[in-house]
This record gives sequence, C-alpha cells and structure tokens, in this order.
Amino acid sequence: MKVSRYHKGDKITYTLGATVTMEYLVNSPAQVRAVILHPDTSPEITGRINELCSGREIDVSYDTKAFNILSQKENCFVIGVIDVTAGKIVSGSHVVLVNPSNSGNLGTIIRSCAGFGVDGIAIVLPAADINDPKTIRASMGAASRVNVEVFETFDEYRARFPDNNLYPFMLDGSRLLQETEILSPFSLIMGNEGSGLPPEFKDVGQPVRIEHTDAIDSLNLPIATSIGLYEATKMHFIQK
Amino acid sequence: MKVSRYHKGDKITYTLGATVTMEYLVNSPAQVRAVILHPDTSPEITGRINELCSGREIDVSYDTKAFNILSQKENCFVIGVIDVTAGKIVSGSHVVLVNPSNSGNLGTIIRSCAGFGVDGIAIVLPAADINDPKTIRASMGAASRVNVEVFETFDEYRARFPDNNLYPFMLDGSRLLQETEILSPFSLIMGNEGSGLPPEFKDVGQPVRIEHTDAIDSLNLPIATSIGLYEATKMHFIQK
Repeated sequence: MKVSRYHKGDKITYTLGATVTMEYLVNSPAQVRAVILHPDTSPEITGRINELCSGREIDVSYDTKAFNILSQKENCFVIGVIDVTAGKIVSGSHVVLVNPSNSGNLGTIIRSCAGFGVDGIAIVLPAADINDPKTIRASMGAASRVNVEVFETFDEYRARFPDNNLYPFMLDGSRLLQETEILSPFSLIMGNEGSGLPPEFKDVGQPVRIEHTDAIDSLNLPIATSIGLYEATKMHFIQK
Repeated sequence: MKVSRYHKGDKITYTLGATVTMEYLVNSPAQVRAVILHPDTSPEITGRINELCSGREIDVSYDTKAFNILSQKENCFVIGVIDVTAGKIVSGSHVVLVNPSNSGNLGTIIRSCAGFGVDGIAIVLPAADINDPKTIRASMGAASRVNVEVFETFDEYRARFPDNNLYPFMLDGSRLLQETEILSPFSLIMGNEGSGLPPEFKDVGQPVRIEHTDAIDSLNLPIATSIGLYEATKMHFIQK
C-alpha cells in the first residue's frame, strides 16, 4: 500500500495509531480502505485488527516505510487509510466553529462533542482542515462518530437551522454562561483562537461569556467550547 | 548568548515567542537572564522588549542560531533565557495533578488556573517536567504567574494542607460534579491522562465525576480540569 504525506484537499487521509484506527473500524468501517501494520505491532493488536477487518474489503498489510512517511510519533504501530467523505450535520444541537485555525484543537473539540452527546459540528470557512491526520488523532477516533459539515458562511448555517437557539461565546458577551439558560436545540458558536468572534455576533441570539481573570487574554478554544458543552448538557445528565 | 536544547533537570529553560517572553519580563523579571531576538523581529516588538529590559541586568542580543537550536516553529522571533526556580505553593485552593505525563497539557492547565484565579498547582511525581519550554509555551506565559510545586507523594501534599477540601476527579466518582458543592479552600485532584487516579483515591475527600457518554473513554485532562475550575469558581465570579 503506497502512502504519501497528507495534503489539504486529498481524497485520502490517515488514522495514526491503533486506538484511532480501531475506532474507525468499529464506527465507520466503510471509510477504511486499508490498514498498515508495523512489524513490531503486538500480536494482540494484530489479532483485533484482523478480526475487525475480516469479511470486509479492507486490505491489511505490513510495512515500515509508511510509518517513516506519515508518523513522527515513536509509539505509532498502526495506520488506517481512510476515505475522506463530505460530512453532513442534521437537526439537533451543534457546536459552530467560526474560523478555527488549529487542527489539533478541532480534534479535541470533536472528542468533547462526542463526550457530551452533541454529534453535529459546523465549521465556517476559512478554517483548519477537518480531515488532517492531526485532527483525527487529537479526536482519539471520535471523528468517526461525530458529523462535521463545512459552511462557506455563518448565514448559510443559520438558514439551514432556523430553529436553533444561538449562543455566541464572546469575551464581552452580555450574560454570564452560568446565569444563562441554554435551550435546546442549541448552537454554541465559538470564534477563532486568536481573534474570537467578529463583533457583529453580539446581535446574534444570546451572547454569553465565560468570566476569567485578566491574568490571561482568553481561555484555550477547546476548553471554552467544552465548558459550554458541559453547562449546556449537564441538566440532561442529571435527569437520566 | 550560547544556548543548548533543554533537558530535564537543566538550571535554565526558555520562553519561545514574544508573548510568552514578555509575560515573564512583566511578571517575573528576576527570572529572565537574557533575551535573544531574531533579526526579523518587528521594530515594535523590539522596542517593547528593550523597554521591559532597560534598567535591569538582562542581556538583549541578536542571533539566528539560537532559533534553529531551540524552536521548530516558524513564527518564533523572540527567545527568553529563564532561570529555573523551585516553585512553592501557599495556602488556598489548588489543582493537584497526580502523575501528569504531557508537558503541553501542564501548560494548558496552568493557563486555565490563572484564568480562574487559582494560583497554586501541586504536581505529584512521577510527572512531566514543569520547566519544559513546551509547558511554558502552552501556558501562554501564565507559568510566570502561577506557583507550581512538586511533591514526592500525594500524602506529602495532604500533610502540608490539612484544611483543604479534597475532590478527586474519577470516572466512577460517587457524586456528579454539578451536584457537588465545592467548598473553599479546595483541592481539585486529577489523575494521569491515560490511567486516571489510582483506585485508593475513592476514599479521599469527596470523589466527583464529570459525566460523559460512552462514545469516549475520558475527557482530555486539561478540559476535565478546566470544567472543575469553572464549576468550583463560578459562584465567586457571579458575586463580584
């Protein structure tokens, strides 16, 4: 199986690592074109991979070169070759990321969305590449469970989901998150890591802020997003 | 100024980037031994660095070699040469990290602690190196404001702060975080990224859990810690 370093727009991407690859084999096997094993893969992992691939048209092979090309991590012994698919989100609660710039952050946010039961993420361009192997790796494989759809503009997203309650997270949001009732279906709207949301979002839905001291400029983006997800979903978890 | 790649235990570490270096020059100038500027540093940044260093015994010089040795990032134009000091925490609320293994995560947690006004972090060994340039960079310079102290054992920490209310975060914690009143001074106790806290922590203070779906094994460590910090401090922010 010939592989080459991933570039934005490629039709194929890669899962780097056994856990991430197995998440795809379990949750989204149709996307997995092939699995490459390092000769040092443990027999246990090899057995589980073979089991998950058996009866499917997934090519499993051994190779070391692929690891030199694709992985800088020493502890990566399994690579999945994954078809890139155009994601589509459906009605329900969403996280909306406007111009996120870091692919690792995208992956961490996907992991949190899966953890808090929100399975739709809208990305407003320009943005980091959701199919980057770094995104998939940071998601710990949760990228195989969460739907991510790319939108040209925020208005395009808004027109598709007119019933969603919109909560832009802004440093000067008019309400504290903890004093805001988050109504479902909700859209938690987060801006770029460095610049936040453009000021016009103060007229969108109910802007909220997570208060912090002036010792920092802002919270890290995946952290702010996850605090929002925790606050928005915690009553649901209590009622269970 | 001769520099060499940082190794654990070195007496000198580095701030990589203008923002992080300036945070140290403002909050902890006595720790800054020298500043190295890339010839491509903007006149504005150069001016601010010179202003912050003037009247102090901080050597400012131009060099490109140091950047090749220390920084893999293309957008790093300023390096601070920083004396490593033994940190010491004082009475009050703390985050206690038992065996954290990732230096970037440590930095992200330091940033959140600064943001939520908790200025003491206890690290229980074995642990990632708090003086690693990666930790300092991920903290966005907040490492210059937050006290971090290393403890050989959790019992050593506990004996020093017998009045703190202890909240171990565990996947099977007996109470939901959102149903737990976090009393000050608090200690939010977090385990290792992969393995969590050892089971004996279920008999320590009030174990709490952040509920999540079974789509993920656990939340990312800085995210779980920051949700704990948000929940523990939010009443304080409302009362302001």
